[in-house]
Amino acid sequence: MPALAYIEYPEASPRVRAVYDDIMATRKVDWINNFWKAIANDPETLERTWQSIKYVMGPGALDPLVKELIYLAVSTTNGCEYCIASHTAAARKKGLTDPMLGELLAVIGMANETNALATGYRVEVDEAFR
Amino acid sequence: MPALAYIEYPEASPRVRAVYDDIMATRKVDWINNFWKAIANDPETLERTWQSIKYVMGPGALDPLVKELIYLAVSTTNGCEYCIASHTAAARKKGLTDPMLGELLAVIGMANETNALATGYRVEVDEAFR
Amino acid sequence: MPALAYIEYPEASPRVRAVYDDIMATRKVDWINNFWKAIANDPETLERTWQSIKYVMGPGALDPLVKELIYLAVSTTNGCEYCIASHTAAARKKGLTDPMLGELLAVIGMANETNALATGYRVEVDEAFR
Amino acid sequence: MPALAYIEYPEASPRVRAVYDDIMATRKVDWINNFWKAIANDPETLERTWQSIKYVMGPGALDPLVKELIYLAVSTTNGCEYCIASHTAAARKKGLTDPMLGELLAVIGMANETNALATGYRVEVDEAFR
Amino acid sequence: MPALAYIEYPEASPRVRAVYDDIMATRKVDWINNFWKAIANDPETLERTWQSIKYVMGPGALDPLVKELIYLAVSTTNGCEYCIASHTAAARKKGLTDPMLGELLAVIGMANETNALATGYRVEVDEAFR
Amino acid sequence: MPALAYIEYPEASPRVRAVYDDIMATRKVDWINNFWKAIANDPETLERTWQSIKYVMGPGALDPLVKELIYLAVSTTNGCEYCIASHTAAARKKGLTDPMLGELLAVIGMANETNALATGYRVEVDEAFR
Repeated sequence: MPALAYIEYPEASPRVRAVYDDIMATRKVDWINNFWKAIANDPETLERTWQSIKYVMGPGALDPLVKELIYLAVSTTNGCEYCIASHTAAARKKGLTDPMLGELLAVIGMANETNALATGYRVEVDEAFR
Repeated sequence: MPALAYIEYPEASPRVRAVYDDIMATRKVDWINNFWKAIANDPETLERTWQSIKYVMGPGALDPLVKELIYLAVSTTNGCEYCIASHTAAARKKGLTDPMLGELLAVIGMANETNALATGYRVEVDEAFR
Repeated sequence: MPALAYIEYPEASPRVRAVYDDIMATRKVDWINNFWKAIANDPETLERTWQSIKYVMGPGALDPLVKELIYLAVSTTNGCEYCIASHTAAARKKGLTDPMLGELLAVIGMANETNALATGYRVEVDEAFR
Repeated sequence: MPALAYIEYPEASPRVRAVYDDIMATRKVDWINNFWKAIANDPETLERTWQSIKYVMGPGALDPLVKELIYLAVSTTNGCEYCIASHTAAARKKGLTDPMLGELLAVIGMANETNALATGYRVEVDEAFR
Repeated sequence: MPALAYIEYPEASPRVRAVYDDIMATRKVDWINNFWKAIANDPETLERTWQSIKYVMGPGALDPLVKELIYLAVSTTNGCEYCIASHTAAARKKGLTDPMLGELLAVIGMANETNALATGYRVEVDEAFR
Repeated sequence: MPALAYIEYPEASPRVRAVYDDIMATRKVDWINNFWKAIANDPETLERTWQSIKYVMGPGALDPLVKELIYLAVSTTNGCEYCIASHTAAARKKGLTDPMLGELLAVIGMANETNALATGYRVEVDEAFR
């Protein structure tokens, strides 16, 4: 059970509906996933987060699929189950294949291992990397 | 100060030198960074980690620069200072520009924010994402 | 299934029952939640943790509700599902409303976002903040 | 050394200066701390993050000092040195005293301890907390 | 549901079967747990991870049970449910008793508490510990 | 600089001095490390934490050196620099050798890698491990 009840479209205020409409139009889908229905309890956070996500995950210096891979790397390291599930789905839509997912997780695994080794050995930053 | 003294090339065993030589040849550099000199205290871990890193960060289904961005995303989320410094340098060598770094960090920031929101609202995984 | 079987009141030793009685009396409830029944497998940890929690979450320089919000901030950042569920319930008893919870999660989200940005940009501590 | 050079006021673009001016006016200070000078490398993230912070940390359902305490709880749990230093300073300006800081850290410590216990004992969420 | 379908023995390639056979022979069991069936989607990672685990968790300077306790400490701190469940089972096979598990979790809990206190108080490393 | 000034012995209250005396007697040292001098700002937390640490790290079902290794595993995973430095020193006093430290860090590294793989592949807990 979520911390606050999901806000469904029919019961949503016009302000919340406007965001829902923009999410569905931008993503070309006809439903709203639970994340947005949960944070809609705080309409200001809904608007701000959607605007940020729309901008940050949109066209820029990095490829859209690459951004989804980065998102997955953070979510896996944080152990956020919902985030891993939803962004794996999003990445598949943008071209993620099974071999790519396998390789992505291999990189994430190695990064977590070497992070722990660098921290535990208390390795100092080399002059060349400062 | 590191947890164990760095193993410099002149004092290294032949087994450790062989790994150092392969690192320098593979990366086309003439020095060894502190991370490897620290874990060389445990030659087996040095060999195993270098083999894994060489394989995982090498050619595959994902672009080499993309893998460095994923590495940075994990290291930033873990707050591993050494790892952030060394992989920012590695990523620059593979084509990372300042605007790309800015956008990368924006994605990492948003991912950490939405991870916290999804966890705190206890959002349930949608049927469509299972 | 928990790692160790829950210790229910009827089967508990007098030492464990004494803690259970104090928990119920202090909180004015007539049941013991699973956290205590799990750690009761280690009676010393049960006593020590309950004494600490009772003192730390009791009257002091900070308001009791404020302490529950801090608890939720830590639990959300750690991704501890049980801790989020139980302390959301505790916070509601001490006055947490839906708009406060929405705003709390917005602060936690922003903190995680800016933490990631500060770490990734490797921002140095300003002289004025040392 | 930061990942990207700090953007100082004299060299900043009009867009960045506008944010800097608003930060100084809102906070009634005459300097810009490193965090903003670092993320100014990505003007869009600077604008978006400042607008979000200004809104989220401004007046709302929760007291401004309480929000700084929550910020500190997240930053401490994440081990973000810069964030702890800057928000301890911010919290002191809003009324944080030494005894309150001591008690705050006691709560953060206990929360991290019991989080680990709940996770390790694999405690299930009680029916009453769902 | 896993991110990629589990690879069961009958449908596995000879390369994957060779690893499965070695896992079962080494551990003296007649089944393969889900972790290996999941990462078998990436046979290289399956081979590399199994070789590392077999070596790292095998005979060495540290006792095998001690290594499982360390594994549990990391997994609990990361909040990785699967890892906690499977390594609690592995540790029991190597001699972990209920009182030892209770004491292990007490140490993990205290470590997380004092880590948070050291970080929040921004304690500087003593000269004697450098 | 720490968040609150260190409390040195000469200026300490009798209550704080009593804890300092017990720390020095228990550990057979003639100085107090910064961690205790920092949390002495909150005498109640000083007493409670010292009592807990003294009990938890003292004789029990697990060997004292083993407990230090577990402490290091948690501190490394959390990336707590002070905690790693002080508990590496403590572990050396209790018998930690260089090869043992190398192997310990190898286990911690592998645990962090496989934790990330289990989380990212969303591996379900096997029936046998429940």
